[in-house]
Amino acid sequence: MRPLSHTVLGGGDDCALVSPSAGHELAISTDMLVAGTHFFPDTEPESLGWKALAVNLSDLAAMGARPRWALMAAALPDADEAWIAAFARGFFACATRFEVDLIGGDTTRGPLVVLCPTVLGELPKDGALRRDGARAGDRLWVSGYPGRAGLGLAYLRGERSLQSPELEICLQALTRPQPRVELGLALRGVASAAIDISDGLLGDLGHLLQGSGLAALLYETALPRPLAGTVPMAAEARQALLTGGDDYELLFSAPAGAPLAEISQKIGLPLTCIGELVGGEPGQIELEDGHGQRTRLPARGYDHFMDIP
Amino acid sequence: MRPLSHTVLGGGDDCALVSPSAGHELAISTDMLVAGTHFFPDTEPESLGWKALAVNLSDLAAMGARPRWALMAAALPDADEAWIAAFARGFFACATRFEVDLIGGDTTRGPLVVLCPTVLGELPKDGALRRDGARAGDRLWVSGYPGRAGLGLAYLRGERSLQSPELEICLQALTRPQPRVELGLALRGVASAAIDISDGLLGDLGHLLQGSGLAALLYETALPRPLAGTVPMAAEARQALLTGGDDYELLFSAPAGAPLAEISQKIGLPLTCIGELVGGEPGQIELEDGHGQRTRLPARGYDHFMDIP
Repeated sequence: MRPLSHTVLGGGDDCALVSPSAGHELAISTDMLVAGTHFFPDTEPESLGWKALAVNLSDLAAMGARPRWALMAAALPDADEAWIAAFARGFFACATRFEVDLIGGDTTRGPLVVLCPTVLGELPKDGALRRDGARAGDRLWVSGYPGRAGLGLAYLRGERSLQSPELEICLQALTRPQPRVELGLALRGVASAAIDISDGLLGDLGHLLQGSGLAALLYETALPRPLAGTVPMAAEARQALLTGGDDYELLFSAPAGAPLAEISQKIGLPLTCIGELVGGEPGQIELEDGHGQRTRLPARGYDHFMDIP
Repeated sequence: MRPLSHTVLGGGDDCALVSPSAGHELAISTDMLVAGTHFFPDTEPESLGWKALAVNLSDLAAMGARPRWALMAAALPDADEAWIAAFARGFFACATRFEVDLIGGDTTRGPLVVLCPTVLGELPKDGALRRDGARAGDRLWVSGYPGRAGLGLAYLRGERSLQSPELEICLQALTRPQPRVELGLALRGVASAAIDISDGLLGDLGHLLQGSGLAALLYETALPRPLAGTVPMAAEARQALLTGGDDYELLFSAPAGAPLAEISQKIGLPLTCIGELVGGEPGQIELEDGHGQRTRLPARGYDHFMDIP
């Protein structure tokens, strides 16, 4: 366990104590992960430890907050020391990578594994990247390669075959997601709105559009392919890109001319302009193909996908 | 749901945003409550909603923090609207009573009810009541009537008979615990150390003694009886007082002469001096009877009680 670097009092008393930086706001998020609902009960515990923290840090990243502290409450069916040690290795690897102090938590007995991390981050007053700040005319951007986690999950479910090295790429995206913390920090003062796409690109785009009261136009030819391959994109890769869950990339809006290429280069993360925000019915999403033909898409996320043409 | 009174952004974005008061520290605590482990699966949901928040606020009270914000993550087996509405009534009754904003959370599906509240409170820098601040010669105090919750639990388990009105008093202590928030605030600058006795008086006294490196001498004749009754105290009432869990009273130390009688009167809560802190083997607890005879007691909490004479 790494020593606490910015905490007044860690575990062992009734509460943890932290001293927020002057002039800053705190961003706070909590998620509950239940075995069988959110992860396979036989998930490798080191990956699970990483992911349990990483998916929460993704929420901080989406607000532009700097991760600072975490608490971890967990119910475990038995005291399997090897399992707990591997879980802790993954958790602390993620905590160390993103400079997060584990300041408290609670471990209890239960009939199945339930994890409930709470994370806290700091950001300058009024500096948060919210869902409701986008304006018509802003460009719509996405980081990385959404869809890879969904393809990895389809493989694990036996619904899809994948070959090396694409298999490793997709499983890595699913089991060791990288919260886009550096991107969130770099987008402060640049992006007009942001959200993470844990529920799938279209579903979370719908949330951003509803928050900002806008519609969106996506350019089909600009969509980043989850895996290199033939043109046009294979139908199932496009479906994973648009609706697969469990990707922890950021979807954000920024005025035309914002220095996204520079930011991409500086943090070493691909950023792709996939469309623009327009007036119109709030929440409506249209996809324009290479011939200028437009198709309306449903703002639906993971497990709700039905009828993309 | 009460409107948020001191929150920048509540639910609905990736994170909640709060703006801590200048010059203050934050106290943070999280607990996981699992059906069948921490509460009977058929517990009346309104009481459960109250208690889930109240037991977490007790941790804030024990640090002298003012409760400010809460998040609630929950797994539920099905969307039973009546159950959820009753749970929310209890939860918000407690939140309103203690001026807590519910700023976020997570609701998910699971095979059994799991609740994981996180609470945040504020306190002046370096003003926390910690476990490690007690000094030899300090008096040891306890609030209210520990043991009532344990007697109520014994009744529900069919291990003890109770008659009205004592039955109601004990069930109320078990199902609607009152976090001692006002007491915690009043003890700032007065108490040298404090802890809540959720694990039983002796067990949590042991934690305070280990934290402060001291031993304790308890006066048997001074112990507050859970229920009015004959002298000497019935053996099972004494056992519930000393080792029963689920009481959310505060145990604290203060220098001789501290104005505890005035505080008790001001906040309308009985406070009893039950002993003193002494040098010696850290963690050792002795009980002195009315004849000056001393017996060593084990610093054990709920469910670990074995051999109190």
